[in-house]
Amino acid sequence: MFRHVVMFTWVAGATEEQKAEVETGLKKLPDAIPEIRRYEIGQDAGINPGNYEFAVVADFDSEEDYLVYRDHPVHRAFIADVIRPILAGRAAVQYSI
Amino acid sequence: MFRHVVMFTWVAGATEEQKAEVETGLKKLPDAIPEIRRYEIGQDAGINPGNYEFAVVADFDSEEDYLVYRDHPVHRAFIADVIRPILAGRAAVQYSI
Repeated sequence: MFRHVVMFTWVAGATEEQKAEVETGLKKLPDAIPEIRRYEIGQDAGINPGNYEFAVVADFDSEEDYLVYRDHPVHRAFIADVIRPILAGRAAVQYSI
Repeated sequence: MFRHVVMFTWVAGATEEQKAEVETGLKKLPDAIPEIRRYEIGQDAGINPGNYEFAVVADFDSEEDYLVYRDHPVHRAFIADVIRPILAGRAAVQYSI
């Protein structure tokens, strides 16, 4: 399988409503993009200082299926409309599992 | 369950041997720390620019079990001896799944 991992931090002015929108919106992506095999997202638990604020771990059957997800218009629109307006930092890795 | 996600980048002078040591060493941790339920690590596939170089996704039954892992002497020694000498950047999130 092939895994995509991404973390975000948000700008200081991001509202709780905007952050909640990220979570509810991401949860709808597996219905729109059938290539997603496993999709587990969540806010940082606040245990360790210096962490990012949000993580997405998404599994696919193949690298090709990940690319379908990466470039899917529903995903791109969500990034542009919901994530980018409050995005401060992003860290990502894709790897074979 | 409770998930720990971490990504690393390495200093420019890190050798291939040092990077390989990270991977082989991490793979031994589940034998030393029985609290680990799932442990999937890997080098970035090189598809997207700006990515981190290595990712660890570790799952535990509970936040408490994650803390056992975090503070386990075998884990701490591995970080000090193998990871820290070549560490350039680190990004982490812990979250409930």
